[in-house]
Amino acid sequence: MNVLLLHPGAMGASIGAALVAGGHDTAWVATGRSVETAKRAGDAGLSPVETLAAGVGGAELVISVCPPHASVDVARAVRDAGFSGLYVDGNAVSPATAETVHRLFDAHYVDGGIIGPPAWRAGATRFYLSGSHAETVAALFEGSLVDARAIGTAPTQASALKMSYAAFTKGSSALLLAVRALAEANGVSQELLAEWDISQPGLASRSAGTAKSTSQKAWRFEGEMREIAATFAEANLPSGFHEGAAELYGRMAVLKDAPGGAAIEVVLAEILGRTLERCG
Amino acid sequence: MNVLLLHPGAMGASIGAALVAGGHDTAWVATGRSVETAKRAGDAGLSPVETLAAGVGGAELVISVCPPHASVDVARAVRDAGFSGLYVDGNAVSPATAETVHRLFDAHYVDGGIIGPPAWRAGATRFYLSGSHAETVAALFEGSLVDARAIGTAPTQASALKMSYAAFTKGSSALLLAVRALAEANGVSQELLAEWDISQPGLASRSAGTAKSTSQKAWRFEGEMREIAATFAEANLPSGFHEGAAELYGRMAVLKDAPGGAAIEVVLAEILGRTLERCG
Repeated sequence: MNVLLLHPGAMGASIGAALVAGGHDTAWVATGRSVETAKRAGDAGLSPVETLAAGVGGAELVISVCPPHASVDVARAVRDAGFSGLYVDGNAVSPATAETVHRLFDAHYVDGGIIGPPAWRAGATRFYLSGSHAETVAALFEGSLVDARAIGTAPTQASALKMSYAAFTKGSSALLLAVRALAEANGVSQELLAEWDISQPGLASRSAGTAKSTSQKAWRFEGEMREIAATFAEANLPSGFHEGAAELYGRMAVLKDAPGGAAIEVVLAEILGRTLERCG
Repeated sequence: MNVLLLHPGAMGASIGAALVAGGHDTAWVATGRSVETAKRAGDAGLSPVETLAAGVGGAELVISVCPPHASVDVARAVRDAGFSGLYVDGNAVSPATAETVHRLFDAHYVDGGIIGPPAWRAGATRFYLSGSHAETVAALFEGSLVDARAIGTAPTQASALKMSYAAFTKGSSALLLAVRALAEANGVSQELLAEWDISQPGLASRSAGTAKSTSQKAWRFEGEMREIAATFAEANLPSGFHEGAAELYGRMAVLKDAPGGAAIEVVLAEILGRTLERCG
């Protein structure tokens, strides 16, 4: 099948590579993208096209893998370019946002939710799919490093699953960092870490690891947390957890380019809006 | 030392028993309390007095162990009864609430925060204390099952530590139950549990255990979550996590008397406001 992949970020490139491995010609739109993206796409075996119109014109399937806040805009651009094939939104968006995209493509819409890291090893990454053509899309990944699973025919199930999953993983990470910041603001960090060492072994080092692993990704977690908060509100459940998480990750967004991720002290300083004293 | 303990609930009775074990005469105010409380107090070796005035009149030290929402009322009643000795507030309240109680007793105030289960075995329960007389109070527990620790002279440090600690433990428990409810509301519970079994082993059974262990205590967690939310707001940090947690535990408050704690299905039905179908 001829596929257009929007866009080959870290995750998207691995999804594209899996399609290429399965024998599917997979293109990406090169204009206006960075040198890093071009390298990733080339390494993944994707073919560059100049414009979205050209990409859409040659594709039977479009897969959108982008930050959640861009999901609807990407979908509208594809629809406005006259695309009439299958459209997969693989992004971390609420069922309501998925429904908005669904309405753009009707029966040609397939909802998607990716769980796990970029798919460079077997068994690590699931691509959940739902909608009337979910099985068709899942079949394209057979034998690849992407474990694609069709979970139903409803057009928002995959997004609901992704939201529920990330609600705990990224929500509890945000909570953990917020708690470290609370103790720091109140001058009881050492006492909290000492108590954790007694009754919550491993939590102190987990908080430091969370700081490092989330600092470069927080800029895009903010939008995902807002989608999750909306998902809670739609279900008449408390949205506050993820409104708080969105605010926390938003304060960390400046750490996007911290090489290797930021240390907990640096992350706490950003969250608290403090200037960190650096050793001379 | 002559101590008045307000009140011998599950936690308070164990604190009282530790004082009695250390040779301190410890009284409680019996009027208007339940038969269960009287039994707990008797088992702990506490002496009943009829009125708060009588209790306060005979005490050099008052220790308040009660649900957070009652903390200030208990303190005002003790002050209004003319008490002039040391006053320990051991409750899960924000630094701002602790400061309100501090102002009632000035230099005679000792801030407290209890971490762990009721203290019926060694090494399980820490009683953190701060304030100018924190060391004096900690010394009363020497050799007892309560590990009392003076952590400083500031009148709100112990409360700040307790808030920070409970913010993660009870906050993440609430988040976990909220996520189970979110998946249930969206019809993807089985898919979420299956994904957790792959990538978050143990989380499914942890969620069921959390439902059981929190259902009888949720009624008093709601107030504690509001105190924690206020602590975040005071520190210019996001308060949403614990506003959400307060709402969630509030919905579970009706489960107070579920024998042995409620099953996850029952808890989810309460959170979602659904009537649970029971097998005939």
